[in-house]
Amino acid sequence: MYKNIKNIDKIVFGRGSFNQLDEIIEPIRKENNKYFVFIVDDFFKGKELEKRLPLHNKDIVKFVFTGKDEPKTSQIDQLRDEIMNTQGLPSGVVGIGGGSAMDIAKALSVMFAQEGSSTLYQGLNLAKNPGVYHLGIPTISGTGAECSTTAVLTGPEKKLGIKCEYTPFNQLILDSELTATVPKDKWFYTGMDCYIHCIESSTGRLYNTFSKAYGDTSLDLCRQVYLGENSGQTPENAEKLMVASLFGGLSLSYSEVGVCHALSYGLSYVFGTRHGIANCISFNVLDDYYPQGLQEFREMLETHNISLPKNLAQTWTEEQITKMAEIAYALSHMWDHALGVDWQTKLNLDIIKDLFRRM
Amino acid sequence: MYKNIKNIDKIVFGRGSFNQLDEIIEPIRKENNKYFVFIVDDFFKGKELEKRLPLHNKDIVKFVFTGKDEPKTSQIDQLRDEIMNTQGLPSGVVGIGGGSAMDIAKALSVMFAQEGSSTLYQGLNLAKNPGVYHLGIPTISGTGAECSTTAVLTGPEKKLGIKCEYTPFNQLILDSELTATVPKDKWFYTGMDCYIHCIESSTGRLYNTFSKAYGDTSLDLCRQVYLGENSGQTPENAEKLMVASLFGGLSLSYSEVGVCHALSYGLSYVFGTRHGIANCISFNVLDDYYPQGLQEFREMLETHNISLPKNLAQTWTEEQITKMAEIAYALSHMWDHALGVDWQTKLNLDIIKDLFRRM
Repeated sequence: MYKNIKNIDKIVFGRGSFNQLDEIIEPIRKENNKYFVFIVDDFFKGKELEKRLPLHNKDIVKFVFTGKDEPKTSQIDQLRDEIMNTQGLPSGVVGIGGGSAMDIAKALSVMFAQEGSSTLYQGLNLAKNPGVYHLGIPTISGTGAECSTTAVLTGPEKKLGIKCEYTPFNQLILDSELTATVPKDKWFYTGMDCYIHCIESSTGRLYNTFSKAYGDTSLDLCRQVYLGENSGQTPENAEKLMVASLFGGLSLSYSEVGVCHALSYGLSYVFGTRHGIANCISFNVLDDYYPQGLQEFREMLETHNISLPKNLAQTWTEEQITKMAEIAYALSHMWDHALGVDWQTKLNLDIIKDLFRRM
Repeated sequence: MYKNIKNIDKIVFGRGSFNQLDEIIEPIRKENNKYFVFIVDDFFKGKELEKRLPLHNKDIVKFVFTGKDEPKTSQIDQLRDEIMNTQGLPSGVVGIGGGSAMDIAKALSVMFAQEGSSTLYQGLNLAKNPGVYHLGIPTISGTGAECSTTAVLTGPEKKLGIKCEYTPFNQLILDSELTATVPKDKWFYTGMDCYIHCIESSTGRLYNTFSKAYGDTSLDLCRQVYLGENSGQTPENAEKLMVASLFGGLSLSYSEVGVCHALSYGLSYVFGTRHGIANCISFNVLDDYYPQGLQEFREMLETHNISLPKNLAQTWTEEQITKMAEIAYALSHMWDHALGVDWQTKLNLDIIKDLFRRM
């Protein structure tokens, strides 16, 4: 049985394509209670982009704080209940921002059509009803959240996505002009999420010709953006990184992430570490698993003078390390891809704890 | 205004994935009059694949002859009327075969929901209503018909596609095992359709970072399949060519074909020449437009001992040449892409006729 992956319904690509938003959602505005919810990264509060939102009378704008914590099940439940209680079911949701804003928009659109808490739907194909229309506009590149079939949420018991065919966006607007204001460190860490996706996708048993085509192209684009004399935050590279992020995500859809994301999820769960930097910290101790990718990753760090936080484990308690290792170990689909179906014979909590102690 | 392209809804990829067909369409069988229409290339009549069709009681199988002519508007109208008059609206249409079978399945699914002849819908966004569910299973790689937003039809007045957001498939099954029995000449000519798509896509004004990412990857895969010591009809190359075809088509969706396809449409219109070989014959006289692509194309011809038909123009009448040139000239979107918005200042019927005379 091969995976049958739901695509994004429609994609528009180009610098300035944000201006097409109003026209694109206009026909959808006749659905449900005839208004849209805009989920916007609060980085844009008071900035130019806020003024460019094509708001009509009943529309709701929710700025979401993505500075530290990652999207939570409680946050989704609260947003849904509050919006439903005031204006009823919206025509659709527009997500504008990074991976968190994308995941909140995706999760919210699904949860508008489900009963009870979002914790009930963390997992594969648990949602019963199609969600409302949702449109994604990424403003930072690398996460692949714009195309993934998963809306990753941290709940009281686990960090795990709502993954079903209602999750992917109905529409993407890929306007790389919106990524021009990304601070350099975030540009690096988030772009590395994409780079690591490709490395993990390509070094596991689910990899195939289809995911390789997407992954190789994405890797090539990452190298153009982060290595060599033309690297850096240029308009041309912003376009390339936006495509790399999409292709890296699509490569994953037909393959899977691996060891780095398993560790990274543990780190984010216990300390709330943002996904991009959590990946970089995790990847940097995985010489035994991804030696080639790591060599290139360290070249990229050097090229852009990025200093990763070090000696973090010195301040961690044994209890925290154990909790992170347990969270990581539980992500069986990642280990299965990275180490093979017999991964349990090759892995135990002590091995994972040792990796965390190297951070 | 950037193009907003409708994707294929879902894709499954892998050798043997044809076996998932029954399970995939099962939930759709409750729609309309609860039966499926299978449009199958008559190459498979009496072959193994015919026995593997997952037929249920009211299902209809229509073998379509694709040996010489390309899909016609009259053929679509007749199929629709005959099926509607006997069993009413089907749950969906499954297309199994090459570009013609794909285009017939796409056009038929759209036309099940429109009034009047399909000639009324040749053009952009002319269809009024969503068609029925349709699923594509390509059995030869290169056309990109599996992913294009167009169902190309030859009508009494023109060869032009039904192009709208209802055209793309709801589902693709990409099983490269099905391409194992393709005769060598067809394997070559149809694969070259993909190669030429990438060359034309990349050498015109609509080309951008998005179509380049798809096009470059597709070109690279074509080179692996048709050049060098590992080239040829191997199972590994069959997978690669299947991905190349899809990516070449997706590159085109955000860009456009060019001079070769304009000439090729003229050739097919007047003589019914199959699209793959018509492209090869046309491409081979375009030294003034695609010198680099042509050099590589001729290496591929030589590698696989393919002899293109030559001196065809010797037997053509002036009237036939004029008609072909008129058909080609009318494809303004192709010339606009290839030669620029001022293409009419660079082109006239005599220039096109001269190209035809070189064939």
